[in-house]
Amino acid sequence: MKAGIINVTGYGGAELARILSRHPELDVVSVTGRSSAGKRLAEVFPHLSGTDMPITEELEAETDIVFSALPHAASAERLMPLIEAGTKVVDFSADFRLKDPAVYTEWYTVDHPSPSTLQAAAYGLPELNRDEIRTSNLVANPGCYPTASILAMAPAVAGGLITEDVIIDAKSGVSGAGRALSLNTHFSEVDENVKAYSVGGHRHMPEVTQELARINPGPELRLTFLTHLIPMVRGILVSCYAPLNTAVTGTGDGAAAHVRAAYKSYYRDEPFVIVTDEPPATKQTLGANNCLIYPTIDPRTDRLVVIACIDNLVKGAAGEAVQNANIMLGLPETAGLQQLAIYP
Amino acid sequence: MKAGIINVTGYGGAELARILSRHPELDVVSVTGRSSAGKRLAEVFPHLSGTDMPITEELEAETDIVFSALPHAASAERLMPLIEAGTKVVDFSADFRLKDPAVYTEWYTVDHPSPSTLQAAAYGLPELNRDEIRTSNLVANPGCYPTASILAMAPAVAGGLITEDVIIDAKSGVSGAGRALSLNTHFSEVDENVKAYSVGGHRHMPEVTQELARINPGPELRLTFLTHLIPMVRGILVSCYAPLNTAVTGTGDGAAAHVRAAYKSYYRDEPFVIVTDEPPATKQTLGANNCLIYPTIDPRTDRLVVIACIDNLVKGAAGEAVQNANIMLGLPETAGLQQLAIYP
Amino acid sequence: MKAGIINVTGYGGAELARILSRHPELDVVSVTGRSSAGKRLAEVFPHLSGTDMPITEELEAETDIVFSALPHAASAERLMPLIEAGTKVVDFSADFRLKDPAVYTEWYTVDHPSPSTLQAAAYGLPELNRDEIRTSNLVANPGCYPTASILAMAPAVAGGLITEDVIIDAKSGVSGAGRALSLNTHFSEVDENVKAYSVGGHRHMPEVTQELARINPGPELRLTFLTHLIPMVRGILVSCYAPLNTAVTGTGDGAAAHVRAAYKSYYRDEPFVIVTDEPPATKQTLGANNCLIYPTIDPRTDRLVVIACIDNLVKGAAGEAVQNANIMLGLPETAGLQQLAIYP
Amino acid sequence: MKAGIINVTGYGGAELARILSRHPELDVVSVTGRSSAGKRLAEVFPHLSGTDMPITEELEAETDIVFSALPHAASAERLMPLIEAGTKVVDFSADFRLKDPAVYTEWYTVDHPSPSTLQAAAYGLPELNRDEIRTSNLVANPGCYPTASILAMAPAVAGGLITEDVIIDAKSGVSGAGRALSLNTHFSEVDENVKAYSVGGHRHMPEVTQELARINPGPELRLTFLTHLIPMVRGILVSCYAPLNTAVTGTGDGAAAHVRAAYKSYYRDEPFVIVTDEPPATKQTLGANNCLIYPTIDPRTDRLVVIACIDNLVKGAAGEAVQNANIMLGLPETAGLQQLAIYP
Repeated sequence: MKAGIINVTGYGGAELARILSRHPELDVVSVTGRSSAGKRLAEVFPHLSGTDMPITEELEAETDIVFSALPHAASAERLMPLIEAGTKVVDFSADFRLKDPAVYTEWYTVDHPSPSTLQAAAYGLPELNRDEIRTSNLVANPGCYPTASILAMAPAVAGGLITEDVIIDAKSGVSGAGRALSLNTHFSEVDENVKAYSVGGHRHMPEVTQELARINPGPELRLTFLTHLIPMVRGILVSCYAPLNTAVTGTGDGAAAHVRAAYKSYYRDEPFVIVTDEPPATKQTLGANNCLIYPTIDPRTDRLVVIACIDNLVKGAAGEAVQNANIMLGLPETAGLQQLAIYP
Repeated sequence: MKAGIINVTGYGGAELARILSRHPELDVVSVTGRSSAGKRLAEVFPHLSGTDMPITEELEAETDIVFSALPHAASAERLMPLIEAGTKVVDFSADFRLKDPAVYTEWYTVDHPSPSTLQAAAYGLPELNRDEIRTSNLVANPGCYPTASILAMAPAVAGGLITEDVIIDAKSGVSGAGRALSLNTHFSEVDENVKAYSVGGHRHMPEVTQELARINPGPELRLTFLTHLIPMVRGILVSCYAPLNTAVTGTGDGAAAHVRAAYKSYYRDEPFVIVTDEPPATKQTLGANNCLIYPTIDPRTDRLVVIACIDNLVKGAAGEAVQNANIMLGLPETAGLQQLAIYP
Repeated sequence: MKAGIINVTGYGGAELARILSRHPELDVVSVTGRSSAGKRLAEVFPHLSGTDMPITEELEAETDIVFSALPHAASAERLMPLIEAGTKVVDFSADFRLKDPAVYTEWYTVDHPSPSTLQAAAYGLPELNRDEIRTSNLVANPGCYPTASILAMAPAVAGGLITEDVIIDAKSGVSGAGRALSLNTHFSEVDENVKAYSVGGHRHMPEVTQELARINPGPELRLTFLTHLIPMVRGILVSCYAPLNTAVTGTGDGAAAHVRAAYKSYYRDEPFVIVTDEPPATKQTLGANNCLIYPTIDPRTDRLVVIACIDNLVKGAAGEAVQNANIMLGLPETAGLQQLAIYP
Repeated sequence: MKAGIINVTGYGGAELARILSRHPELDVVSVTGRSSAGKRLAEVFPHLSGTDMPITEELEAETDIVFSALPHAASAERLMPLIEAGTKVVDFSADFRLKDPAVYTEWYTVDHPSPSTLQAAAYGLPELNRDEIRTSNLVANPGCYPTASILAMAPAVAGGLITEDVIIDAKSGVSGAGRALSLNTHFSEVDENVKAYSVGGHRHMPEVTQELARINPGPELRLTFLTHLIPMVRGILVSCYAPLNTAVTGTGDGAAAHVRAAYKSYYRDEPFVIVTDEPPATKQTLGANNCLIYPTIDPRTDRLVVIACIDNLVKGAAGEAVQNANIMLGLPETAGLQQLAIYP
């Protein structure tokens, strides 16, 4: 089958090209880029030297699926004709993730160009929405933070294991900020440094609350979500805290066992989620499509503590996009995604 | 005045030697080390090549003050004769931080060699206990995490700004793990990686609850304290979360202003605490004795969020020790500690 | 076909397990480890969680080929029975790389346990010795530095493009020092630091001179080889300098063109060597089996300058071992090795 | 005494502000910046929060000395009126380093605005030109690479210890590239990566040949100078190679001793140059004004090998500038520069 990539020249797009280069059934036949149009892909990205493809301004071939790695607003605008023509689309941007156009406008400060499409789009987290993804032509690939955060909390929310006061403290490598230049991603500013950012509220938060509310329409979560920048290239680790609903879980060792069993059960058939026996580390996911999740409790305070991590460019972006595409196209869900993590 | 350093060969001891080398009133006259006895200090630590001093097995000179950078248990054992002789001592270890010997035994898994000294020791956080430090011969230098955590939460606890559900998510550079070899501090394992550790409970936690309880003997804090290892050498950043006591703070913008004013007021005369206008970064403290604190609120959930950072080897260890020594010896509190941070 | 790995628990062995997990024709059926015997592979290396295999003390299955990732001396000792039995072996250690036992003893300070095997072993650099590798049962996998250095200089030596005064200034990531603990690989010592090491002479040097002399038995190279440790996990970059033999190359632009043409021609059929148009960077090889080579000249001094880089654990160790095994077993040389580099 | 800083907003200017904040005799009274005019210094650089000074467009006070941290061309243009007025000036840029305006034009691709000033300027490397600096009103602060390179080779050139074929392989942290944004200094591109750059010739090279030729006007050096970018913030390490002039040095152990004695003697009275007994590491210079130099020989090839390192922002920029200013103003040469290196 044939795939096109719109805006291959960011980190998400380049990672998608890398993954698809080894996909057994999906061939990239056309890629676009804004400033790099006219160059060859391997000229811009020497690590893709095994590929041989021109970067063009527009997609120049018929495809079975299109991936867009454009930023929000630009992506919806470019994709609307394709969507209307019924082309299968996986969109990396935030444009089709939120169901409520008012929430979109609140966080992205622009009006949505096509509010009516929002309900038709599937939120592309296969572990939660596999059936919806299978039957949709428009899949909104989740943000990197939401992928880790929702997967970390879904079993607890689904099982009623917690009450509604949730805190997610997220740590991300710098590649999550993309390839565009900024003092915040300038090596000498970031290296040997850790800081919180978007302290007033990160745009990825409403995805998390939206999707967790769909799992369990009980009392609305009261979520505090704080993001930190870590001096490494790839990887997101989220540490999640919430009071146990001890009426369900009990307390102490019993609660710990209940929680672990619930998580193991929730993800028992998932190819890319591993409930670990030890706290995981981001390095264990480098280049792989896995999400590692470690649920435990703080027995001193009867709190649930869940630690989860992913490679933000794979399970948090390009790998998840391929997983979604596999589902949409009726291919094996793990096709092209079986690479183990690089270590050390 | 004259100072001695017991166990100069770890990172805390070496940093102390560096700071004291530029102290206007305090001269290091004797240093000890275990495996390095017989060598010269600059041979073990080339960055100290401006100094010229032998490392001996025992302190070999009369001193006005002794710093011990031995690990717990070993430190108390070595210091007991000095303490009994009335020598002024600043101890980097955990041996004299906790008031309750049962808590010490619970966390450090050994019986305390001299429980009766625990009440006599001052917990060496000058911003809280300056008077006690001034009149004590035995000062327990706080742990690196507690220094940042207690300073981050003290104004909120003192002012009754929060209720008791506190979560502290702490991120530390690798030097906090010391100079002893371990796979957990092996470069290829740690670089490009972030993970939580001591998930079952970090030994620094009881210091935090003990000292915050002394500030406000109201309802006991229900503290979850989780530590993470960050791929950088120096720096600790803590992100602290607690429900606002809105009866005191109000809500929304009013709460934010109330909180900021309370923090500014609490630290207004402190030479080494800066309440910042923007979220701080660990790099802003590299090599300096400052603690940077940024209090804010999450208006969506009426939670206090406080972000604080220090250089774990300076304000979190050797710099704080010098600050304590200055107070104990009647020297200006900032003597030897006025160096600005190295940036970038 | 079936493979065994002796000493899977170092970085070379673990990387081999990762690569072979995706090899289409070669299955790992038994792995050994010293201290980890009795554990499962994924327990020691969580990134290998897709595999499921016990670590045993001895190989416990019939295999078509055995890889040994033991250190020198230990490796020869363990392999001798297998070698004598005619088992196909790829050895990661230095034990079978040097043809002259006196040179081995000079650099490794032990007598060789079986000097007579040295001539029978093939030096496993396929680009130079493919035919010899194909027909040998014992292949000595090259050192990481020699792989980059020999590939960088071979076309110049073969073509008589230089005179004999060669300087190779090599920079390596820390994983090259292995998984064994040392202050030299302790995070806080290595991060934000660069230094030369083995200044008196690095053990990998005699391999370089031996193999380059086999290419061109003219005047012996006068090689200075200096290694540096770089604060990164993976990657080796060598910068090589030698006077042009201007009688062959000419000078100025003509020399530059002559040199580039010679390099392009020398490697034109090689699947894993890329002569680049721009100076390469180690990141372009992360996780891939490529060696990138950029030959140029310094027109001010008529010197050849060659910059080459590899991933030290792939083309410099486990990937090259798989390439050798593929040749020995009559499999396609690129089988299992077509993964592109991870970027960024 | 009073100092002004033109363009305080780059890394060199900010580091100068940091160092001068603790200078016992020199007070910064005015600082300028281009885009940041109107802000306060501590607002742009929180690590300078101990200072309190506005950034203005022009210097707004009388000063005894002016430092300019502007880029080349812009610096000369701004400084010409001050130079003509006889103000003491230390210029960080390349504008007054090269004596020959044609060489300046060749490397910087602009005509020099005031060729006649070039002879009057002193090249500000105190170890070579102290007397000239003392009597000059215009001191050209050396480049970071030349500081390390010239100091590394000066004793060898002065003593006739080598013949003229010199290779300098230089490795630099990223802060040397400044605070301006570029894909080459974007964290995700630089971290976990090493590469050569300016392979066609780095602008700092002609300073090196110019100053070494002034030491010994014998046969012109045939210098190859190649620079590499290392994933760390601060530090330069140069590895220098040249054939021994064995008629002077002898060979073998005798040569090594001769070389070491010559280096020790050459720098015996220098406060900031240390001839080390072991190969140095950049971390040993972090934040300090020292240059560490390790001369040795390769006995297999009778080559001199010299390894030298500095903190590029201190001895390679702001520290050296203060050292020059101290000399120009008749202050103790080490004033404000006695800080030891930060380690680890």
